[in-house]
Amino acid sequence: PDDRYPSRFGSEVLITRRLDPVVWGSASDGPLSEMELNFYTDNGYLHFDDLLTPEEVDTCLQELQRLRTDETIKHAEEAVIEPGSRELRSLFAVHRSSAVLKRLANHPKLVAIARQLLGSEVYIHQSRINYKGGFRGKEFYWHSDFETWHVEDGIPAMRMVSCSIALTANTPYNGPLMIIPGSHQRYVSCVGATPENHYKASLKQQDIGVPDDVSLSQLVQDFGITAPTGLAGSVTFFECNVMHGSNSNITPLPRSNVFLVFNSVDNTPVAPFCGLPPRPPFIAEREDFTPVGPARA
Amino acid sequence: PDDRYPSRFGSEVLITRRLDPVVWGSASDGPLSEMELNFYTDNGYLHFDDLLTPEEVDTCLQELQRLRTDETIKHAEEAVIEPGSRELRSLFAVHRSSAVLKRLANHPKLVAIARQLLGSEVYIHQSRINYKGGFRGKEFYWHSDFETWHVEDGIPAMRMVSCSIALTANTPYNGPLMIIPGSHQRYVSCVGATPENHYKASLKQQDIGVPDDVSLSQLVQDFGITAPTGLAGSVTFFECNVMHGSNSNITPLPRSNVFLVFNSVDNTPVAPFCGLPPRPPFIAEREDFTPVGPARA
Repeated sequence: PDDRYPSRFGSEVLITRRLDPVVWGSASDGPLSEMELNFYTDNGYLHFDDLLTPEEVDTCLQELQRLRTDETIKHAEEAVIEPGSRELRSLFAVHRSSAVLKRLANHPKLVAIARQLLGSEVYIHQSRINYKGGFRGKEFYWHSDFETWHVEDGIPAMRMVSCSIALTANTPYNGPLMIIPGSHQRYVSCVGATPENHYKASLKQQDIGVPDDVSLSQLVQDFGITAPTGLAGSVTFFECNVMHGSNSNITPLPRSNVFLVFNSVDNTPVAPFCGLPPRPPFIAEREDFTPVGPARA
Repeated sequence: PDDRYPSRFGSEVLITRRLDPVVWGSASDGPLSEMELNFYTDNGYLHFDDLLTPEEVDTCLQELQRLRTDETIKHAEEAVIEPGSRELRSLFAVHRSSAVLKRLANHPKLVAIARQLLGSEVYIHQSRINYKGGFRGKEFYWHSDFETWHVEDGIPAMRMVSCSIALTANTPYNGPLMIIPGSHQRYVSCVGATPENHYKASLKQQDIGVPDDVSLSQLVQDFGITAPTGLAGSVTFFECNVMHGSNSNITPLPRSNVFLVFNSVDNTPVAPFCGLPPRPPFIAEREDFTPVGPARA
């Protein structure tokens, strides 16, 4: 099919306009109000302080601790290990391996928001837990998730939304998610070609598929930076093409979250636009598009 | 003389009480009020948004740009170069080499505050400009300046104050100075022995003379973290023993500042308490204790 969002074709950098709607549903679908949908259209994210109950958050946190301290999990292909400390940094496909997190991926409140934003039934394209330790937590450089999901996974359109559920407090000091609000309205193509098996390196440190300095400066000059913070249990939905990243964390306060990526069932992947074999299914679903959440009335 | 603040003697970690006053002068000395002095006693820092005029700030900023782009300066021993980019990261002893920054080090407003806090005439123990670039600016791990100045430079007592003059905006996002307010009331001894010529490595990345994880967690639990932010020209005075550090900076916004360390003329250095030769004079003054600022009435 047509590559409407070309990237990584040589040395050309280009900032182009987004070609897809931001909100695919409408206020009448609920639960989000017109005002909330407008905020999302303009800024590319929505933040909620208490969508989940304290019990739900606590259950997830306990599950996170269990997964982190399970030595066998560190050897799984779904695990990303911190180079220095041998600690678990991320674990993928947790909506498959963990009953607790499968329940979270099907949470009626989360799924209802994803359905409304994407205007259809939704399935999980990717899920993971992230554990950013204190003291020596590393930065995540700026990127648009969609750029990678399009180029490396073959997702055709910007009809996806990520959902980050904080399991520890996000403060201004412990390397919170930073967002360039409004940047989802533009598409920043990146330079360089995709290497084979790029995901193995890029999960630790990404250097292909990241925007150049000039484009980033332009975005920040036009839109600024924001960082939604909140206690454990706060939830941030952010649009698949919004530019985001995070600084390092030298505070003693770790930053852990569950990350769920919802995709529309009408936007399932085709062959990757970089021409290489697709990433493995635990990183990017390409077979099982079963909708999540309660059956629709 | 007596080592009242032992550190780096083997593997023992100890948090002890501060043995010196925090404020050595009094409110009647001016310009700081009783309330400001109390804030400094409790928190170990004071932040001012507009102590300097925009013209003064602009002059310093131009001087910074001049120094940064002077290729000969990068080869000076006073220069610290960013390992990757070969860019200037810090330049020491700028109150000697630059007429503009010498004037700043003698600024009546800055010196008056330093005199009041230290209760005496003051001289410059160390001065430098710091340039933390955007995109790939590195973190500075937590440390007490006094720990190093005591162990490696032989400063006997906690009667010093640092003054950081922002030459670019400090935002919550570009790796601002983080302070553990109140931590100056305790002394965290560090493990490990000081290697010879430690300053050559420690200016790039410090691993000796940094607090252990348990001590840091204790301090943050007891005192929390704060990060004074402000526009270019804002000034932060912070006590020599307050624990501070900064995260990385992936934003396009560089963070530049001038850093002046005032010491009391009654607290001049003796032989370093680590038993090694002292650091070079461009990092730690040990000969010229001429007071800065206008002559006292």
